[in-house]
Amino acid sequence: MSYIIFCDLTNIGGNMNATNSRYVTPVMAARVALIQGASRGLGLEFCKHILKFKPPAVVIATCRNPEGASGLRDLGGEHPGRLTVLGLDVNREEEIRGAAERVRQNFGRLDLMVNCSAVLHPSGKGETSLRDVSAQGIISTFTTNTVGPLIMAKYFSPLLQKGGGGFGHQPQEKVKQHKGIIVNITAKVGSIGDNGLGGWYSYRMSKVALNMATKNLSIELGRNQSKVVCVSLHPGTVNTNLSRPYHKNVPPNKLFSPEHSVNCLMNIIDTLHMDKTGRAYSWDGAELPW
Amino acid sequence: MSYIIFCDLTNIGGNMNATNSRYVTPVMAARVALIQGASRGLGLEFCKHILKFKPPAVVIATCRNPEGASGLRDLGGEHPGRLTVLGLDVNREEEIRGAAERVRQNFGRLDLMVNCSAVLHPSGKGETSLRDVSAQGIISTFTTNTVGPLIMAKYFSPLLQKGGGGFGHQPQEKVKQHKGIIVNITAKVGSIGDNGLGGWYSYRMSKVALNMATKNLSIELGRNQSKVVCVSLHPGTVNTNLSRPYHKNVPPNKLFSPEHSVNCLMNIIDTLHMDKTGRAYSWDGAELPW
Repeated sequence: MSYIIFCDLTNIGGNMNATNSRYVTPVMAARVALIQGASRGLGLEFCKHILKFKPPAVVIATCRNPEGASGLRDLGGEHPGRLTVLGLDVNREEEIRGAAERVRQNFGRLDLMVNCSAVLHPSGKGETSLRDVSAQGIISTFTTNTVGPLIMAKYFSPLLQKGGGGFGHQPQEKVKQHKGIIVNITAKVGSIGDNGLGGWYSYRMSKVALNMATKNLSIELGRNQSKVVCVSLHPGTVNTNLSRPYHKNVPPNKLFSPEHSVNCLMNIIDTLHMDKTGRAYSWDGAELPW
Repeated sequence: MSYIIFCDLTNIGGNMNATNSRYVTPVMAARVALIQGASRGLGLEFCKHILKFKPPAVVIATCRNPEGASGLRDLGGEHPGRLTVLGLDVNREEEIRGAAERVRQNFGRLDLMVNCSAVLHPSGKGETSLRDVSAQGIISTFTTNTVGPLIMAKYFSPLLQKGGGGFGHQPQEKVKQHKGIIVNITAKVGSIGDNGLGGWYSYRMSKVALNMATKNLSIELGRNQSKVVCVSLHPGTVNTNLSRPYHKNVPPNKLFSPEHSVNCLMNIIDTLHMDKTGRAYSWDGAELPW
């Protein structure tokens, strides 16, 4: 696993130099968000949004290839001391485990984790019919879109259970208060109940399975000792590489910029507490059917 | 791929000798059912039921290891000329493709396909918490329980589109009539809406993704030229190897024998037509939420 530090982290009590990690004492400072799949698209936009609108929150951005993540490099320069980039391939359980250990050593906790990385299909196109479906294509899509986020939750949920509830809304009633939040980016096409058109087999199946993971996580991590809110969020149709082949079918007012979509999703995240866990919400706050 | 013939098929117009298959002329005779995952449990029971109660229907039983399938061998002896066993590992797309080609050459069509094979988890136990979850375990479960049935549909749906509608119910209205039926054996724990207990991550995720596949198939194969009914069926908790570790938690009157479960499921199959496609039904006929 490789990782890069774009900023000096001493001001937030962390030090990502793994070789010296035994000397690091985590300091409970600013709230901490981890954005998985952060090199571009929605993930990069979540980093921008939190750094711009949620100071002094710090952001841990994970992506497969930090060396090539120019957007994150620029962002690190704009927000000195607040952005850490970790190399992590969400398809590799050992890398996720190692990254979680480094975050534990250097930050000690998390308040928010957003799982963003997703593929439409290895071919770059959604399958319009059974002819386009292959076992290898489904498994590959499922590995990135579904297994990755769940394995992220496996290793990072202990840190979210130590969170300070820095994101979301904390109602006065203690029973509704939370320590951390997991957001899995889903898609409306991952709703079986809403599926009227078919096609996109692998993507649809990966997202509905991710929604099941969200539901299961909300139950296991919703218990008293855990108190982690878990939701699936649908970002709308966003102008990113993933959806680009299908933009011509989307009315202009329904094709969101990543900035607009993340604004909407952060508005939802700002309202989350334990009573809202285990559900799927659309960008406009409406609950999605399973 | 290996295969075995337990009976002389000439009386139904087929000949499974692949080396001579170019000389075979498929004959439209008795209705044809294919049971995938038929060596034991529910799959074996579907074969027994159809051979016993639906004569002169013929059954193609697929399983990984025909040589070890003693239940099927016995059954073939009891029903001469009506049972064909095909070796097929549902995890291998090329074997599925080859098996479909052999069935096409020898039978020319299918009226019913039931996807039965499933694993709870490679460990034999459902994951009770995140600690038990592994990327490899999820992917393995998904490959057998979800990808396999969909790839079966990919290669066998052309034969179901040539079916004579020999199973299910044919209403008088032509628009509701069907040519073939695909049944995917699902599980109630694959319902997100019904998930109140959590756990069993891999199994739940694999079954809800299978339900999405069912829904997608029902749309693509529901069109006028196709007319194939696709449903997910929940068999109840059945006394099989899959559920054995959990029998102590099941009240005796809720633990079904394979025979009772298949009786119930065949009663549902007997009522299926185009208006009932794209849904999940429980053993008692109740529709399951997604």
